[in-house]
Amino acid sequence: MNQEQLFGQIKKKRSFLCIGLDTDNQKIPEHLKSARDPLFAFNKAIIASTNELAVAYKPNVAFYESLGSKGWESLEKTVNFIKSEYPEIFVIADAKRGDIGNTSELYARAFFDYLNFDAVTVAPYMGEDSVKPFLGFPGKWAILLALTSNKGACDFQFLKEKNTGNQLYESVLKTSQNWGTTENMMFVVGATKAENLKEVRKIVPNHFLLVPGVGAQGGSLAEVARFGMNQNCGLIVNSSRTIIYASSGTDFAEKARLVALDVQQEMELLIKEAGLIV
Amino acid sequence: MNQEQLFGQIKKKRSFLCIGLDTDNQKIPEHLKSARDPLFAFNKAIIASTNELAVAYKPNVAFYESLGSKGWESLEKTVNFIKSEYPEIFVIADAKRGDIGNTSELYARAFFDYLNFDAVTVAPYMGEDSVKPFLGFPGKWAILLALTSNKGACDFQFLKEKNTGNQLYESVLKTSQNWGTTENMMFVVGATKAENLKEVRKIVPNHFLLVPGVGAQGGSLAEVARFGMNQNCGLIVNSSRTIIYASSGTDFAEKARLVALDVQQEMELLIKEAGLIV
Repeated sequence: MNQEQLFGQIKKKRSFLCIGLDTDNQKIPEHLKSARDPLFAFNKAIIASTNELAVAYKPNVAFYESLGSKGWESLEKTVNFIKSEYPEIFVIADAKRGDIGNTSELYARAFFDYLNFDAVTVAPYMGEDSVKPFLGFPGKWAILLALTSNKGACDFQFLKEKNTGNQLYESVLKTSQNWGTTENMMFVVGATKAENLKEVRKIVPNHFLLVPGVGAQGGSLAEVARFGMNQNCGLIVNSSRTIIYASSGTDFAEKARLVALDVQQEMELLIKEAGLIV
Repeated sequence: MNQEQLFGQIKKKRSFLCIGLDTDNQKIPEHLKSARDPLFAFNKAIIASTNELAVAYKPNVAFYESLGSKGWESLEKTVNFIKSEYPEIFVIADAKRGDIGNTSELYARAFFDYLNFDAVTVAPYMGEDSVKPFLGFPGKWAILLALTSNKGACDFQFLKEKNTGNQLYESVLKTSQNWGTTENMMFVVGATKAENLKEVRKIVPNHFLLVPGVGAQGGSLAEVARFGMNQNCGLIVNSSRTIIYASSGTDFAEKARLVALDVQQEMELLIKEAGLIV
């Protein structure tokens, strides 16, 4: 999927919502726990009830990996289900991978060839050859961690470099401009650091940003839009727990839809205010 | 496994060799490709022929993950095989994981509880809460990326911080001292940067280091020992491709043993020279 198609979906759905499928065996409703594949059963129901409100889904791979090969089967089924039923939806593997070149190539193949993801999140610490293999698949995207939404982000990401005065996350944004383009690279910028979006936009005015941290982690959607939106929207804002665990009863999918609808309606207003839709 | 037990194994086997099980479907001998589980068949043969020469094995998870749930089954079988046949061997998941706290916790459970690994490699970019969950399992280890062996290491790891003058990898070494101890944390320091081991040892004199990059990547074992060895040896040096792909014929396991034996004998000399064994 290219940037224009993604922006097209955002305008059509009047939403830039990504729903995080952080599907936790411990947190899914009781009545699903006896299903043959509880994680997939839960995801299928969430996706069926929310797909008109979201432009993207983002399974965090840790939740599946923690169940071993069975969890990987649930992940495979989930991405296959989305891609066969709703091929217009952007599907992100939140995997935060990154390794030496020949090994990153295998991770890229895992998520883009073996699984049919549109994008995968990538950690920048190991530099160019750890990221580049993710950029060689037409229509696929690497989403590089720049400024994350967690507390530990402060440990290294704000360290100021001696010669340039850049903070580490700014160096990541700047250096990686030489690796990819606005058509194969996005960046993770946490909503809990919305004021930094202004600085981020000075460096990468035209890239899409994946913004986690709205909802359970406390970020504000209006702030994110104010500082981060560009002429193509340029934002995919993720919400996970607030939506998918809106209810722990048999009505979980419907309650998830209601919370997602609230978010979509707020997003619709913000896109309208920005003049991107009428 | 604690530090003393690991050092005990090093003295007993007169080796600080880790064999990297970077088992690539494309590179294993033809006659194994029709096996029911080719990756596991290959690993089993390599492990059976080399276990007396190595103190550790290190499957790089990317090679397994690229085959989806089937690859994960091969990984599970491999770690179970090692732990049941050779429980004294240290088994490292080279996974380079790291995510926000509650998610890193799931990765830690995946590798330490679901799979029975002794250690997992962890990326430091997201800071304390992304690393700490890996430190809460008694006898288990997080191996934090400090200075990696690839070319891209130069993109960010050597950036000099304004206030302290520390390079980023030095900041990682220093800051993480507050998170873990010499009994639950090691560091990755690439052999291709052996001269930097001297600086590393000033900051972390007593931690074990996992050193990749000897062999196919060009690092020198003697240099690594010279700059990196401490009173408990303090080194686990990894070699992958040079050993496991020593031959592509039916004699691959025996040829792997011969290459591993060469490395072990060089290591024995180095440990003797350091006065750690007689």
